[in-house]
Amino acid sequence: MLKIGFAQFAPVFGHPLKNAELIESMAPDFQSADLIVLPELCSSGYNFSSREEALALSEVLPQSPFLERLHSLCTQHNLYLVAGVNERDGDLLYNSAVLMGPGGILGKYRKMHLFWNEKDIFEPGNLGFPVFQIENLTLGILICFDWIFPEAWRILALKKADIICHPSNLVLPGLAQRAVPIRAVENRFFVVMANRTGDEGDLHFTGCSTIAGPAGNVLAQASEGATEVKIVEADISLARDKQITPRNSVILDRRPADYDLICKS
Amino acid sequence: MLKIGFAQFAPVFGHPLKNAELIESMAPDFQSADLIVLPELCSSGYNFSSREEALALSEVLPQSPFLERLHSLCTQHNLYLVAGVNERDGDLLYNSAVLMGPGGILGKYRKMHLFWNEKDIFEPGNLGFPVFQIENLTLGILICFDWIFPEAWRILALKKADIICHPSNLVLPGLAQRAVPIRAVENRFFVVMANRTGDEGDLHFTGCSTIAGPAGNVLAQASEGATEVKIVEADISLARDKQITPRNSVILDRRPADYDLICKS
Repeated sequence: MLKIGFAQFAPVFGHPLKNAELIESMAPDFQSADLIVLPELCSSGYNFSSREEALALSEVLPQSPFLERLHSLCTQHNLYLVAGVNERDGDLLYNSAVLMGPGGILGKYRKMHLFWNEKDIFEPGNLGFPVFQIENLTLGILICFDWIFPEAWRILALKKADIICHPSNLVLPGLAQRAVPIRAVENRFFVVMANRTGDEGDLHFTGCSTIAGPAGNVLAQASEGATEVKIVEADISLARDKQITPRNSVILDRRPADYDLICKS
Repeated sequence: MLKIGFAQFAPVFGHPLKNAELIESMAPDFQSADLIVLPELCSSGYNFSSREEALALSEVLPQSPFLERLHSLCTQHNLYLVAGVNERDGDLLYNSAVLMGPGGILGKYRKMHLFWNEKDIFEPGNLGFPVFQIENLTLGILICFDWIFPEAWRILALKKADIICHPSNLVLPGLAQRAVPIRAVENRFFVVMANRTGDEGDLHFTGCSTIAGPAGNVLAQASEGATEVKIVEADISLARDKQITPRNSVILDRRPADYDLICKS
């Protein structure tokens, strides 16, 4: 059994090191978790007034003071973290999430479907939908608004992801929280959606971080506004059984030869 | 405004003409509806003990006593119906749904993703995912277990379907009912899911037929067990606005060049 969970909180806008402290202050609740998912852009906060402001609050991978603090946590607690970060690559910014373990950064995902004014600040992700191996586990990452594109989730299932880590800063009321168990069951994998709480300017973030299992069941859910860590025990073998009935697989029953419009338009 | 709805009931196994009578008995509740969706296999019932039994209870399109009764209803009420029928084509059977109007049958869909023991009885659909025009409206049809394959819904959205008619005989508890509003919002169209009630052998059908709108809102829902007709007024222009925010379209924000795995595996 694998212990997977989320840490839901309200990052402080513009203060990566304060946010590292906030994450550290939740670490006693990580207990013996194997994997903890943190919200989108939990280094910098979300609601930038300009691209210049976002640049000033960015992280250059693989090393930055914020990332080093997270790395220390991974080492101390023998833990993997998935954390949303404002990634700078040369002059370009990406709304990214990193997978980090005791050995450092193992991979990153750059958000493929940008939301609203993110389009003024970040480049669209250019790494596709990668999966990452940690020990016996295959892990995919999606970020926030990616939730509405079932294609993204399906591709990760086809790449044999067992768990989707979903750092979020959700503002549309309740939709993604209802979608997460559906994404889980239609692909028969686990989903750990770590949302943030609080407000920034005119944006209200909706909390209710959710862990869903391959049967479409909600395994844990946070409240709308509180700082909360929730951890569940996940039997990963459930995510490798794609049968929703003894005679129906959500993967093998697909009709890809009839799906070509999806890749063309 | 278009009036669209469902008629939820328990078809009598093995009695197409009794089922035509049952549908006729609900017609006073159709009022001035433009489109009514009926459950899957509402001609024959669902739980065949053998392929031979299903063959004996099939309909040959475009004309059969059952279909003629439905056609009369369309003429009398100036109505379009989508009805699940056990379709015979030569020696083959399809789990089909027909779109019928005052002018007769306008199109049919053959279920692409067969559920459980349907695989012993029906051929997999061989017509892909067609859309149909009625007046100013574009309409798609999916049947029951198709719900779990987001590809099917997406293809119909890419073909500019305004409404998905979803005749069903659902047995998995509550999953599709929760998925229908998500399918609606991720594609920004209307969905009319007409489920059946009652039991056949060891199968319990879960009712709760659902109409969802492009915002992911439930516009109407039936109870689990009662015979019910529900009709809502639908502003079809909402289904043609694919913007979920002023800067995000659920269609145009897609990244099809990165989705190719979906069509390959």
